[in-house]
Amino acid sequence: MPRFLLSNDDGYLAPGLAVLAEAMAPLGEVVVVAPEQDRSGASNSLTLDRPLRLRRGFNGFHYLVGGTPTDCVHLAVTGLFAEAPDMVISGVNRGANMGDDVLYSGTVAAAMEGRFLGLPALAVSLAGKDCTHYATAAQVLVGLVERLLHSPLPADTILNVNVPDLPFARLQGTEVTRLGRRHKSEAVIPAQDPRGERVYWIGPSGREADAGPGTDFDAVRRSCVSITPLDLDMTRYAFLEDLSQWLTRPRS
Amino acid sequence: MPRFLLSNDDGYLAPGLAVLAEAMAPLGEVVVVAPEQDRSGASNSLTLDRPLRLRRGFNGFHYLVGGTPTDCVHLAVTGLFAEAPDMVISGVNRGANMGDDVLYSGTVAAAMEGRFLGLPALAVSLAGKDCTHYATAAQVLVGLVERLLHSPLPADTILNVNVPDLPFARLQGTEVTRLGRRHKSEAVIPAQDPRGERVYWIGPSGREADAGPGTDFDAVRRSCVSITPLDLDMTRYAFLEDLSQWLTRPRS
Amino acid sequence: MPRFLLSNDDGYLAPGLAVLAEAMAPLGEVVVVAPEQDRSGASNSLTLDRPLRLRRGFNGFHYLVGGTPTDCVHLAVTGLFAEAPDMVISGVNRGANMGDDVLYSGTVAAAMEGRFLGLPALAVSLAGKDCTHYATAAQVLVGLVERLLHSPLPADTILNVNVPDLPFARLQGTEVTRLGRRHKSEAVIPAQDPRGERVYWIGPSGREADAGPGTDFDAVRRSCVSITPLDLDMTRYAFLEDLSQWLTRPRS
Amino acid sequence: MPRFLLSNDDGYLAPGLAVLAEAMAPLGEVVVVAPEQDRSGASNSLTLDRPLRLRRGFNGFHYLVGGTPTDCVHLAVTGLFAEAPDMVISGVNRGANMGDDVLYSGTVAAAMEGRFLGLPALAVSLAGKDCTHYATAAQVLVGLVERLLHSPLPADTILNVNVPDLPFARLQGTEVTRLGRRHKSEAVIPAQDPRGERVYWIGPSGREADAGPGTDFDAVRRSCVSITPLDLDMTRYAFLEDLSQWLTRPRS
Repeated sequence: MPRFLLSNDDGYLAPGLAVLAEAMAPLGEVVVVAPEQDRSGASNSLTLDRPLRLRRGFNGFHYLVGGTPTDCVHLAVTGLFAEAPDMVISGVNRGANMGDDVLYSGTVAAAMEGRFLGLPALAVSLAGKDCTHYATAAQVLVGLVERLLHSPLPADTILNVNVPDLPFARLQGTEVTRLGRRHKSEAVIPAQDPRGERVYWIGPSGREADAGPGTDFDAVRRSCVSITPLDLDMTRYAFLEDLSQWLTRPRS
Repeated sequence: MPRFLLSNDDGYLAPGLAVLAEAMAPLGEVVVVAPEQDRSGASNSLTLDRPLRLRRGFNGFHYLVGGTPTDCVHLAVTGLFAEAPDMVISGVNRGANMGDDVLYSGTVAAAMEGRFLGLPALAVSLAGKDCTHYATAAQVLVGLVERLLHSPLPADTILNVNVPDLPFARLQGTEVTRLGRRHKSEAVIPAQDPRGERVYWIGPSGREADAGPGTDFDAVRRSCVSITPLDLDMTRYAFLEDLSQWLTRPRS
Repeated sequence: MPRFLLSNDDGYLAPGLAVLAEAMAPLGEVVVVAPEQDRSGASNSLTLDRPLRLRRGFNGFHYLVGGTPTDCVHLAVTGLFAEAPDMVISGVNRGANMGDDVLYSGTVAAAMEGRFLGLPALAVSLAGKDCTHYATAAQVLVGLVERLLHSPLPADTILNVNVPDLPFARLQGTEVTRLGRRHKSEAVIPAQDPRGERVYWIGPSGREADAGPGTDFDAVRRSCVSITPLDLDMTRYAFLEDLSQWLTRPRS
Repeated sequence: MPRFLLSNDDGYLAPGLAVLAEAMAPLGEVVVVAPEQDRSGASNSLTLDRPLRLRRGFNGFHYLVGGTPTDCVHLAVTGLFAEAPDMVISGVNRGANMGDDVLYSGTVAAAMEGRFLGLPALAVSLAGKDCTHYATAAQVLVGLVERLLHSPLPADTILNVNVPDLPFARLQGTEVTRLGRRHKSEAVIPAQDPRGERVYWIGPSGREADAGPGTDFDAVRRSCVSITPLDLDMTRYAFLEDLSQWLTRPRS
C-alpha cells in the first residue's frame, strides 16, 4: 500500500488539507506534515539556522513549529519517520497558483522538494476567491494520483494543478497548459505607522498579461482543470549556445 | 548614466556587497537595498503580511528591517525611489550557488525578481570555503555588466555566475554551463534541547551527483568562472505533448 | 452580566484555555483573544513594529497571528471589540509560574497588561509536569472571580495563582504567598549545528533556592493553592531614602 | 580590573552603545554582547525554543543573531566567556524608559537579568526625541559606576537612570525618583492591508498621568537626571495580610 505525504503552505489547520487527506485515505496510507502557521509566499525557503519541533495536532496531523512547506517535506522524506513516503502531494491550496505566482508559492515549493528528493510530486490549488469547493479539487487529484501510481512521470518534473472553484459536475474538462504571465506588480504602497515612521507594503500582483490560449489562466477561466508540468532544472538549455557567442563576441 | 540596483542575501553588512558596490561605481549610479540580516536560504520568499521599514546604514547602504532579498528588489524596482534602476545585480555571495542550491538561494532569487520586473539581472557568488577573493568576483562581474549594457539578453533569462575564490590572474577561463545535481540530502539530524524535547535539524546538502563536463560544479573545480543561464519560466515545454497523452491514456 | 477577557501564552488551542473558558461561561460573557502559537517566555513584549491580524479559530476563540500575550490583551481592551471587558484572566497555563519565572512569563504578562489598562486581572497556572487536572485550576479560579466581582483588589495589584495538578478534592487549602527564588540558572549549553558552526542554548532554570515557608514553591509542594499578590509598580520604595544618601556620600 | 558587560535593546550598531563602551573603557575591561537588531519592546523575553549564534561585528562588539536583550545578558553571564563579568550595564537607550514604559523595555530587562544572575546592574536611557547627547548619559553613568564599585547596592535592586538629552553642563542635578504613570494607551488603530484585509496597530502610549513631584517624568522635565531604584521581587508585600482577609471574608 503506497504511503502519501501531504503538506501545504496554509498550515495544518487549513480546510483544503483536511479534505484532501480524507479523499486520499482509500488509496493508501496518508501522513501529513504541514507548517504550524500560514506560510503562503514562503517559496522554497529552508530553515537551516535552527532545529525544528514536530508536534501533532488534535486532528492527527503533524506540524512543524515555525517550519516552512519545504522544511516539512524535507524532514518527512529524509528520516522523520521509520518509513519514507512514496509520493508527495501539496494542497489543496486556498487560491490559485498560476503564472508568475508559482515562483513564490509555498504550495508548489513543497511539491518541488518532494520531486527533488526523488519522489513523484503534485501541487494542487483551488482557483477562486471564496474557496468553497475543496472537494472538487480533491476528487481531481485522486484521479491524477491513481494514474501516477501506474504511469510515472519523468524525473525533474512535477505537476501543478489548478482546479476551478466549482462543483465537480460543472468542470468543463482538463487542459495541459503552460504558465501564463502577469503584468508587473503594482507600485509599492507607502504608509505611516502610528508613531509616524514611514513603512512600505508590497503592492498587489499585476493583472494577467499573457493569459491567452494554452495558459493556465485561460484554462481556469473556461472552467477547466489546468495541469502544468514544471521543470525543476532551471537551466535555460536553449540559450546555452547563444550565450557562448554572446560572451566571445567582441564588444563594440 | 545607468542606475544599478545591488542586493544580496547575506545582509547589507556583508563584505561581498561592499566590494561589489565599489567595483561598480565607475560604471554608473549604484543604489544598494539589502536585507538587514543574513537571509541565506530565503529563496523567493516575499513578505506580504506586514509592511517593511527602510533604513540607511552607516555605510550608506539601504536595508530593509526583516526583509528578504526578494522584498528588497521588489520594493526598489516598484517605487521606493524616484527613479527606477536599469539593472539588478545580486551578490557577491559568500559561497557558491550551484546545482540544486539555486532553488533555495536568496542571491539568485534577488536577480530573478529583478528580471521578473523587467530588468536585466545577474547573480554572482564566490565559490570557496573561506571566501577571500571577493575582488575577483567583482572584476568578473564588471566585465559582464559592460557587455550586458550593450548586448541585452532575452527576457526570462538571468545569468547565474559562480567565480572561484582565487586571485583574478589565476582564473582559467569562463565557461557556459548547465546546473549540476547533488545527491539527495543527508538524513535529518535529531537532537535534544536542554529541556529534553526532541528537535530536528535539516541535514547537510548531499555531495555532487551530476558534476561532469558541462556543469557549473565542473567549471569551478577547474578554476573557471561558471556562467549558467537560468530560465524564469518553469514550464517544462518539452513535456507538454507527452503529458496530454499521459492524461488520455486508458488506465490499465 | 460581566464580560471576561481570557488569554494565555500557550496559544489559542491550548487545553487549559478551553477548560477555563467553559468553566467561566456561567459567570458572564467570555471572550477569548490568545496568541496563535505558543509564546511561553514572551514576558511583556509588545509588537510595535507591525500591525497584527485577528482571526477566529474553529473553536470560536479569537487569535492574533504572530501576537504576544500582551498584544492580545492590549488590543482587546483598547478597542478591538465594541464593548470592553470587565476583567482579564490569563491561563490556565501549562506548568507553574512561580518565583523568578514570573519575570519571563507570558501568562503573568497578559494579566499585568489587563491591570495596567485599568481592569482587575488574574493569572492562573497548573503546577505540575504532566498537566492533567486543568479542571481543578479552573474551579479554583471561578471561586476567586466570584469573590473579585464583589470585592475589588487595589489598583496596581494582580493575583498570580498556582494550582497543584491534582483532583480538586485532594487540594490541601489555599495560601497567600510571596514569590520564592531559584538558584542561578545552569550554565549556557554549547552545541554544534550540522554545518559545524557553534550555537548556544540557554541552560535550564536553577533549582529552588528560597522555597521555605511563605513562598509559592512551598505552598504548592504541600498541595495547596498558592496566591501571590504582584505589584505592577516596580519602584523599590523602601530604598528611596538610602539611595539619596548613597548618591551624596563622599566617595572614599 | 573589573569586567563590565554592556548590552542594550537597540542592537549592537546603536550609537548609544558605542559611546558608552568608549566612556567605560578607562574603568575596566569592557565586553559587549547585544542583539543583532533593534529589539525595543522585547521586555524580559527569553529565547528557549532554539539555540543562538554569537557573531562579532566589524566594531568589535559581539552580537546574538535573533537574540533578545535578556538572551544576551543571560548567555554572557552564564558561561559564554571564560571569565564572567562583574557588572552589567544596559544602554544608552535611544529614548527615555520612564513610568510604565519600564515594563516593556528591553533596556531595563537586560539590567534586570544581570541583577537576577547575581551582578550589580544599571540601565541608562537618553530622554529626548532626537537623541543627540549620548555623551552626557555616558558621563553620568561613569560617575555612578565608580560609586557602585565601592558601595554596592542591595540585592534585588537595579538602578534605572534617565538622562535629559542636553550637554552635560546644562544638567540641573540628580534626583532619586519613583516611576510615574501614564494614562491608558490610546485606542487600537485599525488599518487595511493592500489585499483588503483588516489589520490592527497598537496605539501610541498614553500621555503622562502621574508625573508630579517625585516621579521620573518630573525630574527629567526639569532637566535633572532621574535615578529610580527598581525592585526585582514583584511580590506586593504590603498587601499579603489584606489578601488573607480578602480570601477568608464570607462572600456577601
